Amino acid sequence: MANITGKSFGSDNHAGVHPAVLAAIIAANSGDTVAYGADDLTTATTARLCSLAGASRAYLVFNGTAANILGLSLMLRPFEAVICAESSHLNVDECAAAERLLGAKLLPVVTPDGKLTPELVETRLGGRGDEHRAQPRVIQIAQATELGTCYSLTELRELHDFARDRRLLVYLDGARIANATAYLGCSLADIAACADVLSFGGTKNGALGVEAVLTMAEAAAAGAQYHRKQLLQLASKMRFLSAQIEALLAGDLWLGNAQHANSMAARLADAITGLPGVQLAYPIQSNGVFAELPSSHAARLQRDWNFHVWSELPDDRCIVRWMTAFDTTEADIDRLAAAVQSTAVG
Amino acid sequence: MANITGKSFGSDNHAGVHPAVLAAIIAANSGDTVAYGADDLTTATTARLCSLAGASRAYLVFNGTAANILGLSLMLRPFEAVICAESSHLNVDECAAAERLLGAKLLPVVTPDGKLTPELVETRLGGRGDEHRAQPRVIQIAQATELGTCYSLTELRELHDFARDRRLLVYLDGARIANATAYLGCSLADIAACADVLSFGGTKNGALGVEAVLTMAEAAAAGAQYHRKQLLQLASKMRFLSAQIEALLAGDLWLGNAQHANSMAARLADAITGLPGVQLAYPIQSNGVFAELPSSHAARLQRDWNFHVWSELPDDRCIVRWMTAFDTTEADIDRLAAAVQSTAVG
Amino acid sequence: MANITGKSFGSDNHAGVHPAVLAAIIAANSGDTVAYGADDLTTATTARLCSLAGASRAYLVFNGTAANILGLSLMLRPFEAVICAESSHLNVDECAAAERLLGAKLLPVVTPDGKLTPELVETRLGGRGDEHRAQPRVIQIAQATELGTCYSLTELRELHDFARDRRLLVYLDGARIANATAYLGCSLADIAACADVLSFGGTKNGALGVEAVLTMAEAAAAGAQYHRKQLLQLASKMRFLSAQIEALLAGDLWLGNAQHANSMAARLADAITGLPGVQLAYPIQSNGVFAELPSSHAARLQRDWNFHVWSELPDDRCIVRWMTAFDTTEADIDRLAAAVQSTAVG
Amino acid sequence: MANITGKSFGSDNHAGVHPAVLAAIIAANSGDTVAYGADDLTTATTARLCSLAGASRAYLVFNGTAANILGLSLMLRPFEAVICAESSHLNVDECAAAERLLGAKLLPVVTPDGKLTPELVETRLGGRGDEHRAQPRVIQIAQATELGTCYSLTELRELHDFARDRRLLVYLDGARIANATAYLGCSLADIAACADVLSFGGTKNGALGVEAVLTMAEAAAAGAQYHRKQLLQLASKMRFLSAQIEALLAGDLWLGNAQHANSMAARLADAITGLPGVQLAYPIQSNGVFAELPSSHAARLQRDWNFHVWSELPDDRCIVRWMTAFDTTEADIDRLAAAVQSTAVG
Repeated sequence: MANITGKSFGSDNHAGVHPAVLAAIIAANSGDTVAYGADDLTTATTARLCSLAGASRAYLVFNGTAANILGLSLMLRPFEAVICAESSHLNVDECAAAERLLGAKLLPVVTPDGKLTPELVETRLGGRGDEHRAQPRVIQIAQATELGTCYSLTELRELHDFARDRRLLVYLDGARIANATAYLGCSLADIAACADVLSFGGTKNGALGVEAVLTMAEAAAAGAQYHRKQLLQLASKMRFLSAQIEALLAGDLWLGNAQHANSMAARLADAITGLPGVQLAYPIQSNGVFAELPSSHAARLQRDWNFHVWSELPDDRCIVRWMTAFDTTEADIDRLAAAVQSTAVG
Repeated sequence: MANITGKSFGSDNHAGVHPAVLAAIIAANSGDTVAYGADDLTTATTARLCSLAGASRAYLVFNGTAANILGLSLMLRPFEAVICAESSHLNVDECAAAERLLGAKLLPVVTPDGKLTPELVETRLGGRGDEHRAQPRVIQIAQATELGTCYSLTELRELHDFARDRRLLVYLDGARIANATAYLGCSLADIAACADVLSFGGTKNGALGVEAVLTMAEAAAAGAQYHRKQLLQLASKMRFLSAQIEALLAGDLWLGNAQHANSMAARLADAITGLPGVQLAYPIQSNGVFAELPSSHAARLQRDWNFHVWSELPDDRCIVRWMTAFDTTEADIDRLAAAVQSTAVG
Repeated sequence: MANITGKSFGSDNHAGVHPAVLAAIIAANSGDTVAYGADDLTTATTARLCSLAGASRAYLVFNGTAANILGLSLMLRPFEAVICAESSHLNVDECAAAERLLGAKLLPVVTPDGKLTPELVETRLGGRGDEHRAQPRVIQIAQATELGTCYSLTELRELHDFARDRRLLVYLDGARIANATAYLGCSLADIAACADVLSFGGTKNGALGVEAVLTMAEAAAAGAQYHRKQLLQLASKMRFLSAQIEALLAGDLWLGNAQHANSMAARLADAITGLPGVQLAYPIQSNGVFAELPSSHAARLQRDWNFHVWSELPDDRCIVRWMTAFDTTEADIDRLAAAVQSTAVG
Repeated sequence: MANITGKSFGSDNHAGVHPAVLAAIIAANSGDTVAYGADDLTTATTARLCSLAGASRAYLVFNGTAANILGLSLMLRPFEAVICAESSHLNVDECAAAERLLGAKLLPVVTPDGKLTPELVETRLGGRGDEHRAQPRVIQIAQATELGTCYSLTELRELHDFARDRRLLVYLDGARIANATAYLGCSLADIAACADVLSFGGTKNGALGVEAVLTMAEAAAAGAQYHRKQLLQLASKMRFLSAQIEALLAGDLWLGNAQHANSMAARLADAITGLPGVQLAYPIQSNGVFAELPSSHAARLQRDWNFHVWSELPDDRCIVRWMTAFDTTEADIDRLAAAVQSTAVG
């Protein structure tokens, strides 16, 4: 596969690094610093992130899969299982890292929109106390989900209350938590308060490569530094991970980036709504547009545009995914929309 | 622990990023690119690295511990063991990542200088074929070692021949392979040819954070891409790892950086040799100086300088470690040497 | 839970040990013998079992879950996955041993009757070659299944051919392979030939506690002795496991026991077929009878009889499971059948 | 390797099953019983064993390696390490089951006699709190040790006090705890009180194959039933494991068997003490005699007797191991002693 000409809609990680993030990396490259996160920048940045999220501790790691695995490693004993959406990144796109590295069983649930509900979780709670069964312990959710949808704060709170009630914990995959925060118009802390451990994604939102694992209660962080090291996530030159977070937090860049990406997705959705043969697959609640259209149309569009066919449907139809990023422009959207339109009307 | 004033001798990863590496990162931040290493820069850079080392494949990862674990994961079945030096990073400083992530038993051997020999390896080969014993499969060595020493090419070849003879494989931890190459005045391929799988370190040699796992035979790479993903080492914005390697390879910056760091270590060693009460602990063969001196002197020096006391010895003596980096200056060395001298002569 | 008065239909492992098996254990208790399976009885017995199944090697282990895990450990690399029926023992009743001990992802498929087909397996083959996905490698089937059904030889051969075609392997959970052999009226080798690795169950068929893992090709057994030891399955006084297998093979006791148990299940099914409100859930093809009936009837029957309610259905109905064993008598069946009848007609 | 003519001194598991144990197995084979340990015999027997040891819970498993792994699994988080004797069964003879199944690093210590002391343990406590190091958590000891020695109660208490002081736990491998109890003339509870989790061995002491994992505090048993199932140690026909323990406890058979075996070892040691060229390697404190003698003498003796050469020494000398069992007779000892004598005097 070659490089991409023009804007990619293939993934929000096809984008590069936001200039402010790059500037912060350059600025951090001054003089010597102790390694492994004992430096002042890391101390200050993680403190600031914790404060923003109402979290007790923040552990920076290299990528999103690592954040999920580190976060879950703080919550699980070997015989405990994770209830997650069938469509979750954890279940589908992490090459069974959870199974290999944690030895944990995932209990996937089919969902209409990538979102779990207490009722859906309940279907996997049989067998508690039965020594022949892995014991459900964590409800794993993504906010925003892999299908571009968001839990409302009410839904999150219901799920968290349900979890507490059933002696379960909530892990929240926040690879796109910025987009969810932007969509809901709430604070980061509002969302974080509905989880026990969560991740805060930087990479898809303008960073070069950094995510944070946040623990809400202090007790949840017990041993986290050892887990991070063992799980191959302790950066020696940590300051360059911290600098990225610092830049994202400064002036709420993280939120601004996400608001922009979300608005580009909304613009795209608006432009293609009502086109013949084209149908939005899920509500637009973050920076992804999933649309159903004829497979032949998708194929024609892929000649000029980078995006994924998400799933094949009967009758030669399919669902495609178009992702927007912090640097997607209105012109990019309008060009793509025009192409979709021209394909649709043939 | 706070930031560091002046040059640190605590670790070669206390240094920042070489300007050329940073420039390459900035240059790579242009337009969109496919993720996960399918981009042109990654293809070109890994091909160039393979060519330099005579390797079949190169897999970029985030840090040195990860490189070791990924490399070993290509060589081991669950019941196979790794013979390594007692003082190896793998055994001492990786928080048992090998045990947790690979389930592998390490069979450490005490060495005089961090280097294994066929005779030392032989001491751990008892029990082959006995189902009660983990079966030795890999000889793990570091070049340069954690004690600043290097294997000669003759020593490496003997070890590799011995390994083949005994149906063992060689894994070479090359976190400081550049320093070893510079010291031996050989090619990278000369060293790599004595291993089956090895790592090529960037981070300690001027990179922001990147290492490569190199497989020599094509067969050794079977499934490596899945192992990398599972082991949490697949960067989405891979181009920024590749850019670092690109910069290190351009104009042999990797070698120049290492030559410089080595010469700074030699300069320091020269300056303190013969001081009363000070004794070099190991020959100076890379960018580390290990010296024995009175513990009280070490403590006094640590007030002004960042470095590690490596081990305590009887009679209130200790071994300290001073590491040099690509950006250590002659003036830095001369200042430290003067301080050691002034402490030594009281 | 207390001991059971009268015959249990709760499980075929509620039964005790067949007298011939006990006699063989007693006979084996004569003089000293080398441990860990190097004794003559073990050599002879495993050879005989291999010969019966057309297998290359046999490894005795303690229980059925262990046999499954050891068998799969011979077939999987860490990033490879197992396609299995949603209802499989492996997926449901082994407390995630596969995930913990093998690090393997299971890819469960909903089936109508506990049996996989090429078409069902095909649904889980997406993502091959994609480094983000665990790579399907093994098709895991049970013969007889956990729902009392059996694959025909034609079905088995189709599945095995399909597997070879798709570069997959077949693992066959033979906890009740004797019952399947009896039902199909074929040889053990006929069934074994459709698998790459399989288990041969003793415990549910009159043994005290022993299962065998059989490898068909010699290559599949590489390292098996180490896996068995590591997986905690190497018996020191192995002769007492071997004696059990010896007794089961002598005079084809294993087959006779299974034929008897199967015929008792058929007798029960015949007796309850046509009762009002009672319906067989699956065809009777081994030693289990699954029947649908009103939940209140099941509850009433459970006052006097030991058996499991397998699943709850809408409208206050449920599916119950009645298992027969080598020592279930016609009188036992007739008493239970009479009770079901009397409950059914109220 | 063939069967053995005459009494073996190769291992205490070369012996068969004590008649009383076999009788209990036969007696337990009456009628149907619920599976997996929910039966009355299991309840009664484990309660009796707990009472004898002052333990909170007892979990029966199949063999000694399994007991060690299950016991340790109750005590360790993934980043925690086990300090053990270099010569421990755990370190040497379990095919790295601890590393594979627990992901735990072992920190072996060379000992003069197989016994750890606070001073020896202290040497492995460096690096606590350092995220690069596996964190020592458990002191693993064997009582009796693999070298036939026993800790005195004073030594055990010192070690346990030391452990508590240093926030460590004690796991005691009791594969031969009966022999140690017999040697010390104390109660089982006296020894158990010095551990947090321990095993109680049956197999080497007259059982067919059963060990128990005992937890002292109730909290230590949290989740133990799931660990046992996952670790492949849950017997379906549990009553036959329980029956073995029942028989060993009845009339203190476990102690009588061990007393007898110990006295046979003492008889052997007495008989060979003072022979030219023969020297006891360790004090005789259980049922093993380790003696140093010329390698050629060992070889000559091995023609007629089954025993292990434990280690090779310089000058063509070696250490041999002679194990006694519950059924070793005075005549067996006297014949072996005569052979040693005749070999020694040429």
